[in-house]
Amino acid sequence: MAKGNLLYAQSGGVTAAINATASAVIHAAREHHVKVLAARNGILGALREDLIDTSKETAAAIRALAHTPGGAFGSCRYKLKAPEVDRAPYERLIAVFRAHDIHGFLYNGGNDSADTALKLSKIAAEFGYPLTCVGVPKTVDNDLVVTDCCPGFASAAKYTAVSVREAALDVAAMADTSTKVFVYEAMGRHAGWLAAAAGMAGHKADDAPHLILFPERAFDEADFLARVKATVARVGWCMVVASEGVRGPDGRFLAEAGTVDAFGHAQLGGVAPHLAQVVKEKLGCKVHWTVPDYLQRSARHLASATDLKHAIAVGRAAVKYALAGRNAVMPVIARNSDAPYRWKIAAAPLEDLANREKKLPPEFVREDGYGITSAARHYFAPLLRGQAPLPYGKDGIPRYIALRNHAIVKTLPDWNP
Amino acid sequence: MAKGNLLYAQSGGVTAAINATASAVIHAAREHHVKVLAARNGILGALREDLIDTSKETAAAIRALAHTPGGAFGSCRYKLKAPEVDRAPYERLIAVFRAHDIHGFLYNGGNDSADTALKLSKIAAEFGYPLTCVGVPKTVDNDLVVTDCCPGFASAAKYTAVSVREAALDVAAMADTSTKVFVYEAMGRHAGWLAAAAGMAGHKADDAPHLILFPERAFDEADFLARVKATVARVGWCMVVASEGVRGPDGRFLAEAGTVDAFGHAQLGGVAPHLAQVVKEKLGCKVHWTVPDYLQRSARHLASATDLKHAIAVGRAAVKYALAGRNAVMPVIARNSDAPYRWKIAAAPLEDLANREKKLPPEFVREDGYGITSAARHYFAPLLRGQAPLPYGKDGIPRYIALRNHAIVKTLPDWNP
Repeated sequence: MAKGNLLYAQSGGVTAAINATASAVIHAAREHHVKVLAARNGILGALREDLIDTSKETAAAIRALAHTPGGAFGSCRYKLKAPEVDRAPYERLIAVFRAHDIHGFLYNGGNDSADTALKLSKIAAEFGYPLTCVGVPKTVDNDLVVTDCCPGFASAAKYTAVSVREAALDVAAMADTSTKVFVYEAMGRHAGWLAAAAGMAGHKADDAPHLILFPERAFDEADFLARVKATVARVGWCMVVASEGVRGPDGRFLAEAGTVDAFGHAQLGGVAPHLAQVVKEKLGCKVHWTVPDYLQRSARHLASATDLKHAIAVGRAAVKYALAGRNAVMPVIARNSDAPYRWKIAAAPLEDLANREKKLPPEFVREDGYGITSAARHYFAPLLRGQAPLPYGKDGIPRYIALRNHAIVKTLPDWNP
Repeated sequence: MAKGNLLYAQSGGVTAAINATASAVIHAAREHHVKVLAARNGILGALREDLIDTSKETAAAIRALAHTPGGAFGSCRYKLKAPEVDRAPYERLIAVFRAHDIHGFLYNGGNDSADTALKLSKIAAEFGYPLTCVGVPKTVDNDLVVTDCCPGFASAAKYTAVSVREAALDVAAMADTSTKVFVYEAMGRHAGWLAAAAGMAGHKADDAPHLILFPERAFDEADFLARVKATVARVGWCMVVASEGVRGPDGRFLAEAGTVDAFGHAQLGGVAPHLAQVVKEKLGCKVHWTVPDYLQRSARHLASATDLKHAIAVGRAAVKYALAGRNAVMPVIARNSDAPYRWKIAAAPLEDLANREKKLPPEFVREDGYGITSAARHYFAPLLRGQAPLPYGKDGIPRYIALRNHAIVKTLPDWNP
């Protein structure tokens, strides 16, 4: 890339590992004496000229950043329109980049972000502004194409499998006189990756989870209830894992299945409470349910060591690509073998990733549609492997860092996205 | 106690630490060459003569038991009626104990179990059957009187504080364009101990959690909403922790506040989705919520080292008391000082604990009713302190043990509780 600063921004839902990527980006850039600016709240910070000078952070702070969940510079859910529809934001970005001598842009997000980085690289070329745009993968949804997995996913997957295993031991102990069915809701609006990872909680037939509901399969209530009933009869209890994106035969999300509160207003979703209600009404057994929600993607205390290695590697590679002027690419994870687990970083064109979505492969889903196959186990096992110890304080809480996030002085007129 | 076997049983909701107590009981008894039988599914196993011979388990299995959550022998929610009302179950228990040479009974549970152990000790005395009954404390609700804390609570408390801290980092990163309010639901039907422990997630003013709702305080919706609104205006977002037992001014649980599904049936509880709905409707901001449910009490992966020390100490002391013939007592935890944290085990009469309930002390609740005081922090800090590492498999999942649970041959006629 042309001599100047790197801009780093976080986009979309944050993860337990995205700050490990940020930390790696800053470390790698410092090794090359390149300054990293960070956009506050993702691309919105770049549009608002709300930039953070990461050179004001100590080396110790950047090290601690690597084990802190959340998004240290703030993220955003904001999608730029196509430049054919609205060119102004792209022109603004170029103006901000020019004002702050930014010639490399690292956008850490999912397929939307890859699309934005790609578009920006094209506009910069049109303007003749020297800019190297590199996408950096991140998403607990694991739904990016090309890459074998997405940093952030494996830690959420480990959280899911461990939590289901632990809750299963609890339910098994209570089932004689209390809870017979437990429903665990996993994230995954369109793809069942996290729900599938729950399958790693058990090994043998009749180990929990007994039934996994994937968004890739239409929900059949009668079949589901028959299986729950049979499992309770056979095992004594039943653990269900449901992806938040499970849909009925009509294509509607179960979580939006018309539940209303006492005032007749639509109730906020939750596929787990919905299924719990159905089981309770139709089978008459005691049900408990959990919706971990953000806990599953921010649980750095249970992160996967493999995931953190990936997160750091893509951060370092992104800096390397940017400095080498490799434009409109993303460092992705390429798997060479399952056992022993071997992987490497490869550069993929953003064009190949932008706006595409990877579903759970059919060969990962058991024939009956309610569990995972050994192919899935071979895929997941190395991802969940390894623990990532944390420093804890005397109060028993992990020592997570809050960065100074020193703002750069603005030099341009205000601009509201 | 008279020469013979010890019977150990688990009762009520299980925890991440109760098996550590079970492991300590078995280890201590083995040191004295006393055999421990375990009742399958708590007192019901004793009534059914469904007993497990723990001498069939290897030393390695009993060591692994100490780090396995859930209740290894099964628990139950079953309360014996008073002997004045129904004497038959007590007579059956004595018959089972006589048949299996049981002269010590360790009942691991809460205040109900303390009451059962006490009643049984009296009946045995009436029968002239030599039996030493010892209660062993356990409950994530932390609501036993006399003892400074209850084994199981501190691990659930640590889970709560860490989860709230991690989710707060997530929400803080998303708040600019997405979630502004997050609601975390903690267990605690009658006492706000776990909700209070969430306060350990933050230290400074405006650290999360911003608002804690205790069952000890009547919920005032207008005041709550005004505080949420002010927090979002000041901080940019708001983290709410609500005890499942929060009640409105009419004394009804919020979780039962009349929510119905599309068929007009009462919706299964959840104070968090209820509050989320109220905030969304009245303040119009995006809300996320979590109900960890059993995850919070089975999360051995995040257990407190202090908690496990307590759990082991009460198990060892219970065996010591039983062998010494100290009847109708419970080993409790007595705190000598907060810093340095000093504690010891003391014997308390079951009479003093049975059927009583310890609420959160008023001096632990901040004057405005929505947070905790420094007195609470001094109490919680040593309880949450210390991590308790686990063995993990190559699949990234903790190696929890399933015992053989070898059944003793029945010698009595069937008896149905």
